[in-house]
Amino acid sequence: VATQCCIAGDIGGSNVRVDLVADDFKIIEKLKEPSGGDPVSVLTRLIDKLRNDLPEGLSFRGAGLAVAAIVDKRSGAVLRAPNIPAISGLDLASEISDKFGFPVIVENDANAAAYGEKVAGAGRDFDSFVMLTLGTGVGGGIIIGGRLLPVAAELGHATINMSGGPLCGCGNPGCLESYAAARAILNNAASALEKNSDSLLKTLHNGNTYKLTAEDIYNSALEGDTLSRSLLREAGKSLGVGIANIINMLSPQAVILTGGLIGAWNIYVETAIAEASKRAIPELFERVKIIPSTLGDDAGAIGMAGLVFEKNKQPKTRKTDR
Amino acid sequence: VATQCCIAGDIGGSNVRVDLVADDFKIIEKLKEPSGGDPVSVLTRLIDKLRNDLPEGLSFRGAGLAVAAIVDKRSGAVLRAPNIPAISGLDLASEISDKFGFPVIVENDANAAAYGEKVAGAGRDFDSFVMLTLGTGVGGGIIIGGRLLPVAAELGHATINMSGGPLCGCGNPGCLESYAAARAILNNAASALEKNSDSLLKTLHNGNTYKLTAEDIYNSALEGDTLSRSLLREAGKSLGVGIANIINMLSPQAVILTGGLIGAWNIYVETAIAEASKRAIPELFERVKIIPSTLGDDAGAIGMAGLVFEKNKQPKTRKTDR
Repeated sequence: VATQCCIAGDIGGSNVRVDLVADDFKIIEKLKEPSGGDPVSVLTRLIDKLRNDLPEGLSFRGAGLAVAAIVDKRSGAVLRAPNIPAISGLDLASEISDKFGFPVIVENDANAAAYGEKVAGAGRDFDSFVMLTLGTGVGGGIIIGGRLLPVAAELGHATINMSGGPLCGCGNPGCLESYAAARAILNNAASALEKNSDSLLKTLHNGNTYKLTAEDIYNSALEGDTLSRSLLREAGKSLGVGIANIINMLSPQAVILTGGLIGAWNIYVETAIAEASKRAIPELFERVKIIPSTLGDDAGAIGMAGLVFEKNKQPKTRKTDR
Repeated sequence: VATQCCIAGDIGGSNVRVDLVADDFKIIEKLKEPSGGDPVSVLTRLIDKLRNDLPEGLSFRGAGLAVAAIVDKRSGAVLRAPNIPAISGLDLASEISDKFGFPVIVENDANAAAYGEKVAGAGRDFDSFVMLTLGTGVGGGIIIGGRLLPVAAELGHATINMSGGPLCGCGNPGCLESYAAARAILNNAASALEKNSDSLLKTLHNGNTYKLTAEDIYNSALEGDTLSRSLLREAGKSLGVGIANIINMLSPQAVILTGGLIGAWNIYVETAIAEASKRAIPELFERVKIIPSTLGDDAGAIGMAGLVFEKNKQPKTRKTDR
């Protein structure tokens, strides 16, 4: 039975989402709005709305904010947020905490999602796993010893091709993200379609290839479109290289995958698993399970709630803790 | 003042080393022998020697064994030891513990070295760092929150060139180890010398290029030899790719480098740092220090001793601990 609740916020590139979450990890209420030019104002307004509507009988524990950004693990300051310039460099935890007077923690969104899967999702039975969020880009979160590892886990920005490759948004050529995620697949689709007209993809969006989505690609792949299948296999192969590197480094019990692209599991992820099995150290590969997330889009909110409740459990006498 | 001691063993590809270490991390006695065909017999004999010669007044806490192998973190079994076939698959911890009747723990050698630097070396002031051992191959160990992360940390077997590259001993093409470590540099030296006679290296070992050592390469580099300098720069660049990947993944406070090759710091490591600075996320790179180890060859023995003493500190009442 739930006795506590908290607010879980998420500032992404296009939307701000704010949830009220109970400590049995049920989401009580969910608000979502476009971030516009000033996501912090949107966030503040949505938090205010939820706060004025707190349920009776549950004690309120504060807020946890997930951001698509690199976060300073000590201060909660946003160090770098390429897709959300408005919060880049902002001490978001202090900003919101000062405004509302309750404790606020800030975490990277993929890290939050990983912890969500740990407390209430596909990672519940694993002591150690790595989560990869496969969206426009590639994010990551690492659980070791049942806890969220306090590291950047920018798994999408690992160089897997040092001899060149497409330039990533981070400025570096050869990143995993530039091969394995939706933006990369769509870029490859656009250039392939310029050369080769023989694809279902040409018939979509009145032939405007720049309107294609990752969903279009895997729907076409499921219908047998050769180009779509080969694009997903190519991306899956690169994903497999990234997964093998993670296995050799962190020897996790599981790798959990989330994001729209895993809808194409049979082509995209199976190719990744085949490639990882070739590259990972066999004794480590045979001990790892590669599985889909179970919380989907709610993983981040649930993970932030988990972090807020976890922080509250810590004994108050340990004054040396921040 | 030391009150405890333990035995720290190390089974490498060519030698077995056994030390007696006090809990102020002073090495009291050190024995070393070639491993021959039966390194476990050599280890047993050396342990027996040290054990019959324990100092008065120090209580004995057991043994910690470092192995150049992948170790099961739960059982202490050796999962894979490519260069030490005699121990591959062996439950070394039980084997030695049963023989002598004292507790034995087993750990990967690079992990042990990382923990050594944490308790008594270059990592003492860092809460989180990654250690890279740059020898014939590349090993790694990860410290987070002041503790050794219980993971494989096979950092040398990260694919940094998925589009091809030399075949690694692990069977995978494009591993960091195949570009950045001594074996790779010497292979590249041999093939370069077959084509190009204009190098100091040709004058060494009566022209037998297969007798060249990493030390020859960096001594020649320090004397201005163009080929040697370019070999070290090429290896350093690849090392920098590996370091950038580590920084983006684990956002450590430091990366600590050890091994013979770091004697060529100005060429090899400086090139690596320059490459890492280009590829790592700037906000993470500016927070990391890249520094040499201070314990050198003793890091592994000191780290194993640290792990043995640490295990003894754990409260005996926690029966759920292994």
